[in-house]
Formats: sequence, structure tokens, C-alpha cells
Amino acid sequence: MAANAPPPPPKKDLVADWQRLARVFIRPEDDDSRATLIKYMERILFGLHDFLKRHVGITEARSLRELSQNYMRTDISEEPEKKLADVIACLINETAPHAVNVASPYFVGHMTSAIPFFMVHLKTIVAALNQNVVKLETSKVVSVIEKQVIAKIHRLIYDFEEDFYLAHVQNTETTLGVFTEGGTTANLTALWVARNAKFAAKNEFSGIENQGIAAAYQAYGVDRCVILASRLVHYSLRKSAGILGIGNNNVIPVDTDKNHRIDINALEQTISRIRSESPKTCILAAVGIAGATETGTVDPLGPMADVCRRHNIHFHVDAAWGGPTLLSEKYKHLLAGIEKSDSVTIDGHKQFYMPMSCGMVYFRDPELLDVIEYHANYVNRRGSVDLGIKSLSGSREANSLILDSALKIMGSQGYALLIDHGIQTAAAFADEIKSRPDFELVTRPVLNILTYRYCPQKIQQALKRENQDRRCSLNSEINRVNRDLQRLQREAGYSFVSRTTLQGDPACGENLVVLRAVIMNPMTDMKILREILDEQQNIAARFCAPDLPAV
Amino acid sequence: MAANAPPPPPKKDLVADWQRLARVFIRPEDDDSRATLIKYMERILFGLHDFLKRHVGITEARSLRELSQNYMRTDISEEPEKKLADVIACLINETAPHAVNVASPYFVGHMTSAIPFFMVHLKTIVAALNQNVVKLETSKVVSVIEKQVIAKIHRLIYDFEEDFYLAHVQNTETTLGVFTEGGTTANLTALWVARNAKFAAKNEFSGIENQGIAAAYQAYGVDRCVILASRLVHYSLRKSAGILGIGNNNVIPVDTDKNHRIDINALEQTISRIRSESPKTCILAAVGIAGATETGTVDPLGPMADVCRRHNIHFHVDAAWGGPTLLSEKYKHLLAGIEKSDSVTIDGHKQFYMPMSCGMVYFRDPELLDVIEYHANYVNRRGSVDLGIKSLSGSREANSLILDSALKIMGSQGYALLIDHGIQTAAAFADEIKSRPDFELVTRPVLNILTYRYCPQKIQQALKRENQDRRCSLNSEINRVNRDLQRLQREAGYSFVSRTTLQGDPACGENLVVLRAVIMNPMTDMKILREILDEQQNIAARFCAPDLPAV
Repeated sequence: MAANAPPPPPKKDLVADWQRLARVFIRPEDDDSRATLIKYMERILFGLHDFLKRHVGITEARSLRELSQNYMRTDISEEPEKKLADVIACLINETAPHAVNVASPYFVGHMTSAIPFFMVHLKTIVAALNQNVVKLETSKVVSVIEKQVIAKIHRLIYDFEEDFYLAHVQNTETTLGVFTEGGTTANLTALWVARNAKFAAKNEFSGIENQGIAAAYQAYGVDRCVILASRLVHYSLRKSAGILGIGNNNVIPVDTDKNHRIDINALEQTISRIRSESPKTCILAAVGIAGATETGTVDPLGPMADVCRRHNIHFHVDAAWGGPTLLSEKYKHLLAGIEKSDSVTIDGHKQFYMPMSCGMVYFRDPELLDVIEYHANYVNRRGSVDLGIKSLSGSREANSLILDSALKIMGSQGYALLIDHGIQTAAAFADEIKSRPDFELVTRPVLNILTYRYCPQKIQQALKRENQDRRCSLNSEINRVNRDLQRLQREAGYSFVSRTTLQGDPACGENLVVLRAVIMNPMTDMKILREILDEQQNIAARFCAPDLPAV
Repeated sequence: MAANAPPPPPKKDLVADWQRLARVFIRPEDDDSRATLIKYMERILFGLHDFLKRHVGITEARSLRELSQNYMRTDISEEPEKKLADVIACLINETAPHAVNVASPYFVGHMTSAIPFFMVHLKTIVAALNQNVVKLETSKVVSVIEKQVIAKIHRLIYDFEEDFYLAHVQNTETTLGVFTEGGTTANLTALWVARNAKFAAKNEFSGIENQGIAAAYQAYGVDRCVILASRLVHYSLRKSAGILGIGNNNVIPVDTDKNHRIDINALEQTISRIRSESPKTCILAAVGIAGATETGTVDPLGPMADVCRRHNIHFHVDAAWGGPTLLSEKYKHLLAGIEKSDSVTIDGHKQFYMPMSCGMVYFRDPELLDVIEYHANYVNRRGSVDLGIKSLSGSREANSLILDSALKIMGSQGYALLIDHGIQTAAAFADEIKSRPDFELVTRPVLNILTYRYCPQKIQQALKRENQDRRCSLNSEINRVNRDLQRLQREAGYSFVSRTTLQGDPACGENLVVLRAVIMNPMTDMKILREILDEQQNIAARFCAPDLPAV
């Protein structure tokens, strides 16, 4: 090749530039730099949890306001500010201590936790390969692997016959699911697809994606779309309805039963009420929750699916949190009915223990995603196998490689161990809370999330016997104590439990403030959870409880 | 802490599980595994470009169909399939060879290219810290740094006074921009904000985000929204209009001038025509392009901004590609007028040379993003500094740490070297193409993208003298040759130039097929580009040209 090409004339300015570019592009500046980088990378890659414990501070008490003062400069310096190794050293020694050690087993407040050390290796490889799965020309086999791992998870959810998967796993015309940035864009994609499928082209009307909502409603004689979901639905569903032009007010909350699951009778009644109130209201979708963000509860997915099928409503399941429970033989029954859904959201960066950020959405019907198809001249051409044709995202990293490798490394049993540990430890934690007179369990864990509050036994008893005014006022005091308690514990920096609010007695006009624990870190055990409760008890006794009214 | 807590009773099954969990969670299984991992990680982190050259194949000729056959299994194995080190070795030795070496200097077809080796180190650190910037409680200082780097890029674009930035850089009430997954979600966010700002709450109407498009149009007496952009606008703008319920048909293409820039007179005329045709059509936004995906051209941003301001139209600039040109003192004038825009998209994974995937969107008015504000009980509470309050994304990785560090390592001058190299090399490449009788330059590079086609001189001359029928038929033949040529070169695996289509003679009813080169890899020099042309010439001479009609 190119045997006949003359050698290029040397370009003086480019050569001069080249050396400088090469310095930052290709390798560390010098042996010292290299040694520094090797030291840190080895610690991170082969001693991840020790590294995080040593370098990443939840023990850091400096206030946000103080911290912010160090980050006020907004000019970009012309010359490099520091040598590469110094920037990295600074990141590790000056930034990390003020970040949050989400991997600490004492950090049980959110759905972000420790990840297996090998996930960092996998992310490193994905970054190094820098494939862009929007199109085959920048990913090739990686697009093929993505289709395979999507089929694996689809099968975990829907469990169709082998023939179905052989027909679709590498089919370039059909799509079983897509990777997204996270649960929000996964839920958005599901509702986008449901919207477009409902308002498909007919007669003169070329479809909602083409002509927009106003024209679609007119073509179909509709003046409003609604989406039904329990009060506990994640706020991304409201956001999605807002983005899609449906309006977030049109996410209609359906009452829950005493176990915080959607009430099937209430769902049926809501459908009847809406249908009888206006024939021009379209019920676009219903959303079932498999692992509510705030309580970890699971809606009755089977009965919801049956209701939806009877009424021709797209049934989406938000299993962003709970989805991987399907990998546990012991607990997968908790998600029974998910296989009857039309679409399912599952996050990779939650219970698949992948690094931030990775979501996914799956569709029962491999052709349903056709309603969001886009083409361009330079990529995603008709007939190509480019994954970007049916996807909210454009350019996108190959998170699928991480999930595919992780499934091979862990096996479903490996993930099941993590899932089972979380569920069993949460149950034990609930028992511990119930056994302590100063605490009240608010929501029993179904999966691995529970809520409780500090509420001394005497006040628990008073709440049972007092009249409504007094009850409301006591609850209000207890809310204040729990708010303070959560903040003081977070600021002390040893451990972290989050807080949220749940529906309280409507007569009080104030919700219940509760503490929320998410047990996903396999290093979180009962010894640690007892310590967390002890600390809360101590804080409350010293700072919060003395102001409580006598009862 | 926890001095009074009794030691937990040993839990037999959890202890038994623990060892297994620890095995995959904490560290490599054994010394052999560790040694294997160290070997690969060292190659990746400290010899990235050699590693990619050696392991990642663009020389791989196996067809997609053949490859796919190896990725048909869709069951998730119960037991781990392989030891960790074997999975990683397999990823590197069996997967990578069939991926695409986008870092090769011979890969000049797309906007995905080589990245500086240190970017992989930074991505590794970000994955290890696993911060979630949706909320302060899982990111702390990282949220503060994100605000700072956003202010730096805002300043690069809008260049307001120091006082403005001191007031906003760490202001928890205002927002200068947001990180997104990529350019598509950045453009979507910009139009979402424009839509919501236009249809704000008034009287009984609580706003479009709340009540949806149908109610909004009614409240404002509108029956259609349109977005104006040149024919070269990226397809993500049409997709965004589709998602937002505006309808992708309502992205109205405006004619371009002979330099592929939007024609300002045509823009004015389109506005007048729409306004006179229907007072109920709302012109929501106009989009200027700073680095068109297909030609690299830049719209006349200043004049566009003036037109938009006069007509009260949101002016968005899609600078996903061209944005970082602002870092070059020599070439930033090419984007003059961008500072008059209302919002700007810039991608991190393009000319900031970050790994996949990172986009950003900036807003002139720090309060404009208030129209997409969302809250939840457990995070993003009113008054909190959580970055997730005004963002399309929910959970999200800390790509801001990578950009912030890269700016410090490179300085604006370091980036300017890359930008300048691309623009200058593209200009030299254009000269080379013009000097070769078998090629025709189709679009002259403004930034670092150009298009050309194989078209022997005799045919070029014939195209000038022949009648229209003959011209169309010749062009059609040349289109075929260029399609084949591009495919054959890609399949040969030495180098990669992409292809797209540009508007041809309307009378022919067929667009122009062109070859497209994107010069962003600093290792791509004129020697390599000449080799690529030589190879094309050889391929054409052997396989494509013999069928060309005699002229």
C-alpha cells in the first residue's frame, strides 16, 4: 500500500507542535511521573476498598460553604497548571477526602454503594477501547455483544422460548432493549415508545413523532393523556411525562394499600372514573414499581398487568432497583408478573453493581421500538445494524461490555449472593429496630430497603391514646427530631442513613419524616447496623430528645 | 461509638457467603490472577496507543454475520463462567481484535478518535470513586467542582465580567449549564428549556411542563410550534422535537448558501412566511451549527443571533463538535457570535478528547433552567444544592472531574495545539485532494472536516459540458463508485474514511455521495492522508473505475 506515495515534506510547525502534543497524548512526561501514576493506579485497581477507606472521606466535617470558597476561579489557565502526576495526586489527596465514601459499609442511605473492584478494571478497558456504540463503524463486535447481553437480560425478565431468542438475539431488524444513561432516560424511553405506539400514523396523520402532540390528539379525538402509577412512583416518571409533552400533572397517583403497594381496586376505579369522566382522555400507560425508591416495596405486578391488558394500556415496570432480584432463585418470586409487562426499566449502576452511570429498558415486543426509529445520512442508514437507530442516545459508551463481563465473572449465583444478603440483612435490621424501644419501624422491608424513625416508646404509646390535635403535634415534634438526627449523623461523618417523607395522617397536613436504609453493600452486616442505631440513639439522647414534650 | 452494642451472633450462612462474595468483591482470587490483571492494566494505562495498535483490530476482515454466530447464547450461566483474569484476558484477546481501533491515525472517518492516555487514568479514578452527582449526599466536593468547571466553559463561551462569575459559580440557586450523556441529550435539554420558557404559567394555566402541550397551545392560542435550522442540522434536533411533542416535521429546514452556511436572507424570509401564513404558529427556536456533522461548516452565528433577538426566538447553538475551537486564539474567530446565543451544546467526548460519553449544555441566563426544576422527597429537596434538581438525567457519573483535570493538564494552549493541528492538516489535505486529478474536493474545510469524492478528471470535465440527463447519469455512476470505494477500503481494514450524502442537483433526484474525513487525531499527518488517498486510488482503479462510462 502507498508504495508510490512520495515522503511528505517535513512541516516545521507541526513537528514542533508534535513533541508537545505527544508529551500529553502518549505517555507520562518522565520516570518520576510514571512512578507516581503507577503507585496510585495500583492502589486503586488492586486495593480499591482500602484505597477508598484511606482517601475518600465521609469523616470530613468541613462545610459546603467553606469548601466552595476554594472553587471560585473560573478562568481556564493558558499554560498547563500542573504536571499530569501532580493533577492526579491532587485529585486523590485534595479532592477525594472531600468526596463521599459511598463504598463504606456505614453508608446505607442511598442506592449508590460499593462496587466489586473488577468493575473499575472493566470501566478502564471500556474507556481505553473508546468504542462508540451508536454505529457499527465505531464498535463492530461490541455492538454484537451488546445485542447478546440485552437478549440475556430480556430472557431473565420474559423467559420466552429458545427459538424466540435465536430469532432475535442478532437480528438487525428487531430490538429487545436498549442501554441508556440511567433509570430516568430508561423510563423516558419506555413512555416515549408507548406514546408513539398509541398515536401511530393513520390516514392523513403521519404519526405523533412526525407531527407532534397537538396534531396527534386531533387525529385521534383525544384532548389529554394520562399515566397511572402509585404515589410512590419515582419522580423520573413525572419528569418523563413533562418532557414528552404529556404534562406531569397527568401522572395520576393511585392509592396504595397498607403495605405501600398499589391498590388494584383503586387502579380499576381510577380507570373507570377517567373513562366515565371524559371519553377524550387517553390512558396511555400504567407504571408498576419493582422496588420503590423510598420503601423498596413491589407493586402487585401480575394483577396490574391483567388490568392493563384488559383495558389496552401499556404496562411499564420500573424495576430500576429491584430488577436483579430475578437472579435470585430464593427471591425472584417477589417480582412475579413482571413477565407480563410491555416494558421494564433496570439500572446497571444499582443492583448490577456497575459503576455510574448505566440504565437499560426492555420491551416484550421486539418490534415496538420501531416507533422511535431515526436515520441520518452519515450513520444509522436504513438497513444498517447501527444501534443508534432506535435509541434516545446518540454517541454512547459500551457499558454493555461491563455488564456482559460481570455476568460471566459472577454468574447468576454470584449476584444472587448479593441480593440474598441484602434482603436477609434488611429483615434482620428490621427485627433489631423493632426490638429497640426508642425506634419505630415504619415500612417493613420486602426487598432490601426499609424506613424507620426515632420515636421513644413513651411517645409511641401516647400517639395511640391521644386525640388528633395532640397526635399531629407530637408527630410534628418527632419529625423535627428525625430531621435533626439524620443531619447530625451525616455531619459527624461516621455513617449515613438518608431521610425521606411518607404519607402521614391526612388530617395532620404534614407527612411523616422517616429514616431510610438501603442495604446493598455486602460489607454491611448487623454489627455495623447496630452501631449505626447506637449512634443515632446517642445523638438523639444528647441533642434532639431533650426538647421532646413530656408525655 | 457503639460501645454498648453487644457483638452480633455469628450468622452461619452469611459467613459462608461472605467468603465467596469477598472473593469477587475485594481482590483477585490468587496471585496468578493478580499478575495477569497487572500485566494488562499496565499495558493499557502506560502504553495505551501501543496496546490499541497491537490488540484492537481494524485489520480484522471477518464479516459481521460470521462474528454474530459466536454471540447467540442468551442464558446467563449460574456458576461463574470463568475466573476474573480469564474474562479480562478474553476481552482483550478475543473481543478487542474485532472491535474498531478508533485511535488509529488512519481512522479519519468519524468524530471518535484517539484520546490522551491520561483520560483513561481519569476515567478509572472517577469509576473508583463512583460518586453520583445527582445529589450532594453522594458527591459533596465533586458537585462543587462540577459547578466550577461549568462556569469555566460558560466563561469561555459568553465571557461575562468577573463579577458575574463570582456571583454564580457556586450559587446554589442558579445554573450556568449541565452535564449530559452526550450531544443528543444536550440539544434535547436546550429545546426542552426553550419550550418551557415559552409556555410558562399564566393565569389559570400552570405551565407546559405541568399541563402538557395540548393545554399549553390552548392557553397561548397556538396550534403549532416550529424550530428553524439549516438542512445540515444534526438529526438529534429532529429527534428532540419528536420527543418533546413538537413533532420532527416541525423542524423547518432553511436553505444554505454555497458555503453550506445557513442563508440569513432565507432565514428572515422563512420567519416572515411562517408569521404571515398563520399567527397561531409559534417559532420556538432557531438552531445555529458550529461545526456541522457532515461538512464541519459554521453558520453565521452573529447575524443569526441578531435575527432571533429581533423576533424573540430562542437561539441555540449546536457546537457539539466545534465548541472547543474557542480555546484556540488562532481560530476562535470562526465561532464569532456564539456569545450572543441563548444556549450552547458542547460535547466532552469530541474535541475535548474525553472518553465516551459526555455532553454539556450552557445557558446565557443562569435562571432559565428553573423551568425544568424537579424535586423529590428523598433527594433534590427545595433549597438543597443537589445538581439533579435541574437536569434531564437522574443518577449520573462525575465526568466533570475528568474535564476539570484535563483542562489543568493541557491548559488552553494544549487544547489549542490539537485544534490548530486539525484545522491546518485539513487545509493541507484539501490542497492535496485538489492537486490529484482523480479526486474532487466537495466541501472545503472550515474547521477540520472536509468532504470529497473520487471523480476522474475526464468525468469532472464531462460534468461541466454535458446536458442535464447525461450529468445526472454520470453523477449516479460516480455515486456508486464512491459507495463501493468507501466500503472496500473499510473492509480492507487499513484505513477508514466515512461517507455521507450532500444535496446534489435537485433535477437529478439523487444526492451526492461523498467521502468524509474528520481530522482530529494528532497522529494523523499528511503522510498518512496521502497513503489513504493512494489506497483509494488503487482500489478505484482495480475494482470500481473500470465500469465507469467512457467520456
